[in-house]
Amino acid sequence: MKRTVTHLADGRELIYFDERDDASHDAVDRRDLPPPPAASEMRHDPILDEWVAIAAHRQQRIYLPPTDQCPLCPSTEEWQSEIPASEYDVVVFENRFPSFSHRVGPAQGDILTGLVPTRPGAGRCEVVCFTSDHNASFASLSADRVRTVVEAWADRTADLSTRDDIEQVFCFENRGQEIGVTLTHPHGQIYAYPFITPRTRTMLASARAHPGPGNLFAGVLAAERADGTRIVAGNEHWTAFVPATARWPFEIHLYPNRHVPDIPALSGAERDAFAVLYLEVLRRLDGMFGLPMPYISAWHQAPVRADRDLAYLHLQLFSTRRAPGRLKYLAGSESGMGVFINDVRPEQAATMLREVRL
Amino acid sequence: MKRTVTHLADGRELIYFDERDDASHDAVDRRDLPPPPAASEMRHDPILDEWVAIAAHRQQRIYLPPTDQCPLCPSTEEWQSEIPASEYDVVVFENRFPSFSHRVGPAQGDILTGLVPTRPGAGRCEVVCFTSDHNASFASLSADRVRTVVEAWADRTADLSTRDDIEQVFCFENRGQEIGVTLTHPHGQIYAYPFITPRTRTMLASARAHPGPGNLFAGVLAAERADGTRIVAGNEHWTAFVPATARWPFEIHLYPNRHVPDIPALSGAERDAFAVLYLEVLRRLDGMFGLPMPYISAWHQAPVRADRDLAYLHLQLFSTRRAPGRLKYLAGSESGMGVFINDVRPEQAATMLREVRL
Repeated sequence: MKRTVTHLADGRELIYFDERDDASHDAVDRRDLPPPPAASEMRHDPILDEWVAIAAHRQQRIYLPPTDQCPLCPSTEEWQSEIPASEYDVVVFENRFPSFSHRVGPAQGDILTGLVPTRPGAGRCEVVCFTSDHNASFASLSADRVRTVVEAWADRTADLSTRDDIEQVFCFENRGQEIGVTLTHPHGQIYAYPFITPRTRTMLASARAHPGPGNLFAGVLAAERADGTRIVAGNEHWTAFVPATARWPFEIHLYPNRHVPDIPALSGAERDAFAVLYLEVLRRLDGMFGLPMPYISAWHQAPVRADRDLAYLHLQLFSTRRAPGRLKYLAGSESGMGVFINDVRPEQAATMLREVRL
Repeated sequence: MKRTVTHLADGRELIYFDERDDASHDAVDRRDLPPPPAASEMRHDPILDEWVAIAAHRQQRIYLPPTDQCPLCPSTEEWQSEIPASEYDVVVFENRFPSFSHRVGPAQGDILTGLVPTRPGAGRCEVVCFTSDHNASFASLSADRVRTVVEAWADRTADLSTRDDIEQVFCFENRGQEIGVTLTHPHGQIYAYPFITPRTRTMLASARAHPGPGNLFAGVLAAERADGTRIVAGNEHWTAFVPATARWPFEIHLYPNRHVPDIPALSGAERDAFAVLYLEVLRRLDGMFGLPMPYISAWHQAPVRADRDLAYLHLQLFSTRRAPGRLKYLAGSESGMGVFINDVRPEQAATMLREVRL
C-alpha cells in the first residue's frame, strides 16, 4: 500500500491510500476556496454532564448535490471536486464543514452562564472515500478494497492518537438518506474528539464495575458464542452477533475474538478476516428485504490515553429500517428518557439475517 | 371538570376528562377485540447498564390509517374507534400496543446469557387524546383545553404513582410524521416505567453532585433568567428558554419558576399560566418557518419514590427541523457516541423564536 500526503487549496490535508505501490498523485487542487471555518464551540451541559458542539457553519454544508457536482468523485476537466486526482482507491481528507477542528478561532464572547463552561471544539473531522465509483456501496467493495479501508482507519487512528488535543478517535459510516446522509458517494467519516464521549464513558464505567472474572466485553462475547442463538456469522478471528439487548430493529456487533483496544492493534490476519466477515454481514443486511438498508456503522475504540486495557474494540452496525417502508424513529421514550423500545426480537433478527441467501 | 372511568371491549381502561360537569358517557365499546397483548420483555444491557424493552407485538400497530378509520376519533355509526363516545374533550386510555403493561404473561424461556437478566416489561402505556377534532393540533387548542390536558396529566401521574410496579411517569407528545408519528389525530402518550430512566438517572446524578448553593436545576433556571439572551417567553409562573447547551436545532425548556417535583404539585394558578405560555411557545415554533414543526415534547418529572427533592419538573420541547426542508438526524456522532452537534446557535434559535409575529 502506498500513502501519499498532499493539501487542498485551502490548506486542508488529504491522504491517498493506494493499493498499487506505483500509484502517483501529483494533481493539484486549483480551486479558489475560502479558508476553512474556525473550530466550533463546545459547551458543557451541567445537567447531563456532556459536551455539546455548536457548529453553526455546518448549516451551509452541501446537501445532496447533483451527481455531476459530487464533491467526493475524482476531479475532471469540467468539475473540480474535493479530490484533485482523476482516480483513487481510498482517500481521506479533512472535512470542509467540520464539527471539530484544530483551527481554533478568536475567543468567543462570554455569553454563557456560570454553570456552562465553554471551550473551542478542538479536534479533527475527516472524510474517508471508499472508492471513486459514485454508485458503489460499502457492501459492493472487494475484500481487498475493504482491507485498504481498514489500513486507512488504522493509519488515521494511530496518527490522530498522537495529537495532544485528541482523546478519542471514532471511525464510522452513515449510509442512506433515511439516516440523514447529505452526499450519496460511498464514504465514511472520522471524528477525533477532544474528550472521551458519553457513550464510551458509560461503557467503560460498566467495564470497571464488572465483578469479573475477566473483561466485561470479553464476557459478553463469550456468552453470545456459547449461546449461539444470536450469532449471525463468524470466522477464526471475528464474531458477528445481534446483542441480546439490541436497541435497533437490526443491530449487529462485530467483535474480534482476541481482546484488542483499537484498529491499529489488529494483526494483518485479523484485518483480512474482518474484511471478509463485514462484507458478508452487510450483504445479509441488504439482502433481508431486498433493498439497501439505511445504517450507521460505528467503531468503538479505546480512548487514546485512558482505560486502554478495559475497552474492547468492536463495530456496532445498526439499521433504522424495521420493515420495508417502515423506519424506527427515536421518539419520546428514546429521545426524552433514553429508554429504547425494540419492535424486533434480537433472536428473530439474527434468524432473518442468517437465512438470507447470498 | 368531570372524570368518568369506563373500560373498552378488551378490558383496557378508558377515562374521560370533561370540561362540563354534566357530561355523560354511557356509550359502550361493542367491538370484538382480542385480549390485549402480554407485557413486553425487558432485558438489562450489561455494557450500557440500561433496560431495553423488546416489544415484538408493536410491529403490528396501526400505521397511518385513512382519516375515516382513525382510532382516536369519536365513534360513529359507521366506524367504531378506540373511543366509544360520539364526542369528547380529553380522553385517556391504555395503549392497545403497549411497550409496558401490567398484563404480565407466562415466563419467557431462559434464552439469554448469564450477563443479561430479563424481567417482564411491567408498567403502563396510555394514549391521551387532546381533542375530538382530527385536524387540530396542540397549538390550536384553547387555553381552557390545555388546562384540561394538564388536569389529565396530573391525574394520571398521581394515579400511576400509587402503583407498586411503577417508578417513573413520563407524559409526552410526538408530533409529525417526520418524527415517526403513526396516527395524525392530536394525541400524546404516557409511559409509566418500572424503573428510573437512564436520562433521569444521569440528571439526578448531576443534581446530587452539584456543589451548590441551591438546586442544580434552579441554578440553571436562575442563570438563564439573569442572562436573558436565550429566554423565549415567560410569565409570573413559568420561564421558557433555549438552553445554552441545546442539542437540537430548536429546543425550548419550560420551567416553573417555583421548584416542584411533578405536575400534580403544580398549583391551579401555575397550571393556568402553563397553558398560556406553552401555547405561545408552540405557536412561535410553528410560526418560525410558517409550517408545522415536527417535535417531541417531553415532561421531566421526579421519580415516584426517589430523589423527589432533587428533581425539578420541566418540559423539554424540541424540533428536528433545522431549516425548511431540512431535518436534523441523529447520525454517527449522536447515535454511536452520544455526542450532539448542533448546527444552530442557541442564541440564534432564541432570537428567531422571539421574532415570530403571533
